[in-house]
Amino acid sequence: MSKNRLEDITALAKRRGFVYQGSEVYGGLAGTWDYGPLGVQLKRNIQNLWWSTFVEQRDDMYGVDAAILMNPKVWQASGHTGAGFADPMVEDLENKKRYRADHLLEDAGVDPLGMTLADMQQTIIDKDIKSPDGNELGEVRQFNMMFQTHAGPIQDDNSKVYLRPETAQGMFVNFKNVVDSLQPDFPFGLAQIGKAFRNEISPREFVFRTREFEQMEIEYFVREDNWEEVFDQWREQFYEWFDLVGIDKSKISELDVVGDDLAHYSKKTIDFEYDFSFGRKELYGLAYRTDHDLRNHQEHSGKSMEYITKDTQEKIIPHCIEPTFGVERTVLAILDSAYTEDTENKRVYLKLAESIAPVRYAVSPLLKNKPELVDKAREVYKMLQAKYGRVVWDDNGNIGKRYRRQDEIGTPWCVVIDFDTLEKDGKVSIRNRDTLEQTRLKPEEI
Amino acid sequence: MSKNRLEDITALAKRRGFVYQGSEVYGGLAGTWDYGPLGVQLKRNIQNLWWSTFVEQRDDMYGVDAAILMNPKVWQASGHTGAGFADPMVEDLENKKRYRADHLLEDAGVDPLGMTLADMQQTIIDKDIKSPDGNELGEVRQFNMMFQTHAGPIQDDNSKVYLRPETAQGMFVNFKNVVDSLQPDFPFGLAQIGKAFRNEISPREFVFRTREFEQMEIEYFVREDNWEEVFDQWREQFYEWFDLVGIDKSKISELDVVGDDLAHYSKKTIDFEYDFSFGRKELYGLAYRTDHDLRNHQEHSGKSMEYITKDTQEKIIPHCIEPTFGVERTVLAILDSAYTEDTENKRVYLKLAESIAPVRYAVSPLLKNKPELVDKAREVYKMLQAKYGRVVWDDNGNIGKRYRRQDEIGTPWCVVIDFDTLEKDGKVSIRNRDTLEQTRLKPEEI
Repeated sequence: MSKNRLEDITALAKRRGFVYQGSEVYGGLAGTWDYGPLGVQLKRNIQNLWWSTFVEQRDDMYGVDAAILMNPKVWQASGHTGAGFADPMVEDLENKKRYRADHLLEDAGVDPLGMTLADMQQTIIDKDIKSPDGNELGEVRQFNMMFQTHAGPIQDDNSKVYLRPETAQGMFVNFKNVVDSLQPDFPFGLAQIGKAFRNEISPREFVFRTREFEQMEIEYFVREDNWEEVFDQWREQFYEWFDLVGIDKSKISELDVVGDDLAHYSKKTIDFEYDFSFGRKELYGLAYRTDHDLRNHQEHSGKSMEYITKDTQEKIIPHCIEPTFGVERTVLAILDSAYTEDTENKRVYLKLAESIAPVRYAVSPLLKNKPELVDKAREVYKMLQAKYGRVVWDDNGNIGKRYRRQDEIGTPWCVVIDFDTLEKDGKVSIRNRDTLEQTRLKPEEI
Repeated sequence: MSKNRLEDITALAKRRGFVYQGSEVYGGLAGTWDYGPLGVQLKRNIQNLWWSTFVEQRDDMYGVDAAILMNPKVWQASGHTGAGFADPMVEDLENKKRYRADHLLEDAGVDPLGMTLADMQQTIIDKDIKSPDGNELGEVRQFNMMFQTHAGPIQDDNSKVYLRPETAQGMFVNFKNVVDSLQPDFPFGLAQIGKAFRNEISPREFVFRTREFEQMEIEYFVREDNWEEVFDQWREQFYEWFDLVGIDKSKISELDVVGDDLAHYSKKTIDFEYDFSFGRKELYGLAYRTDHDLRNHQEHSGKSMEYITKDTQEKIIPHCIEPTFGVERTVLAILDSAYTEDTENKRVYLKLAESIAPVRYAVSPLLKNKPELVDKAREVYKMLQAKYGRVVWDDNGNIGKRYRRQDEIGTPWCVVIDFDTLEKDGKVSIRNRDTLEQTRLKPEEI
């Protein structure tokens, strides 16, 4: 697969209204992206499908939506204010530009996996690695990735707050609230969709590594002796999800995270990696976090994080399995899986699943200057719109052009009202995006 | 209506899992709130209904989802970095606590509407107004309400960015992007749902005045000579929306914003106020913003914000009508409208519209220790869950208790499987929350 594939997808995304550079008219803002009409709808469809699948259609899941701004004690307890949540940073001594040290090592052909700061420093010296501008590099240091701000009218250390770097802690700190108000049976999980922020030193690869992103995340609480079974169940759930949203499973591989890359609180973590055109990269994660988080918050807050079992009235601090789905990476993997160059038919089309395609039906009159065709087409359009809500009217250019335009945004079905509709049996032409087959159906059979 | 009504609603919201104090286990964080399982679902239902009504079911609306972090030039252009977006702040000279000057005036029985900083200062002196702790107050000053942070590894003036204080500008700066990629017919609108942040000096009244909140907002572009007609159409839309989500229209009044309270860019603004138990307060807004925003961004960015009309190829900078809906205030107005004390039947219930109620059906076996009842009830439960997705299983306590519990969270329908279901005609009992009437239906007729 060519490196250009990412550029092709980025260009299509901008041209057709999926994703624009953030604040583009003012020259952008690194690591931010704005979603256009088709991108918003794609994202909403993904999120609604996720919520329906993992919350509404299950008996054991409870939604939470915590604030982005949280009491800073949350991040002290979770360890995010410490060295564990920092990137290795190095400065160009000439022009003071700063870089991710591990990225510079990768670019120089060195695998930084598991390296300490000192290791990186030594490798930079040994290999005589320079900055991208060819200058000497300074010392490799830790850079904390949390965005800081101040809440309230006084700016001092007491008013310092952070933009949350993950949604997970918003669920842990509400564990007891949910237990108290809903009395869930055990095991059960909490689920959240929401924004998080990481002050990446070098955001890159389109929406893959951004400073502002959205997570769809679950904290599933289990007994310690049962974690492996539940872990495997969730692993299976990922593969069902790939099928559901149209992520190409042949590009997925599992990475068992080991050694220094395994977080200190996790006893097992799997990364689901995807073969993007810019490399094999982390798409989703599944982690067994033990009882680390609840126990930690119990210690730091002084509030009980215990669950009392309904059968035996036993007090336990549950262990936790965490499946994490990044929204932007989902969008990117879906676009990559869907992007198809059909040289035989001279077209590019997005093979999006019908459940998430921003537009489900495009409705056209064969000719836009024949009022009788237009009237009938409007009628079919209104009917489908009321029924499905993701329907567009397209009468621009000839039918061939309309088909190409709808192909490019992944519309699964194009409905055309022609003279046969009016003069024969009332049936309309309906064209399949992938097979190009056209069949004839009565509008109410669609 | 008693002042206690807000306390009653806040207590119910916490107890039943709608809304918790943000970061509660760590003593909270002023002006933030976390949504529990029922609150998330209520909020999602409101947002999905809004999106369906104002975007998916219309031909003239286009969604946008811009980043929260934007290039700071956006806020220079919009005027938010200036004095216009600041609150009057005054300090307790003894203990250095800071207050909204206008709030202290209100508390002292003075109407601060239209007052300048100097007016407020003079009134504080004339009326000898003290801080809530009884101390002397200092000078009334402007306090900018935008949260500041820094993007990237260097913290200096060049890296300073803001958390957006409104979603509106995210649409204006993407106006040209949407025009270029979607070629909308005129008139058309952009719509966005998303978070915004205002560093309120004194957040208060539950979710009414918070530092982090969510907006559902529309920028509708029109020709200048047509603005009044479109303004009136949108005004009507608000009343349709009140009916749709169950906001009590008898508590709504319109405030024509005039004089100093009218923003300099607006030629007409209506506030839709709601009679909360803590006073008549702004719920929603409808503003005619002229061509101020697009023209401003054209000047500051140097990029064209023109739309070329399809019929006459005329270049225009459209004027703009802005309907704004706050999510949290919607939630609060809905809870206030729905909260009903039914003394006759000794119950409290939420009269929520079926389209937004977090739970639509509760399904119960009459007795939980009769396997044949439980099996049949599970079957009905699974059927309804697959069909509607907002269904709970409730077999806790006797039927009377279950009804009261479901009433309190606003579940419109309770379905009970009893011996008649098994022994007679297979019909189940279905109880209406508001009328308390019970009818019998076959499960597939529900």
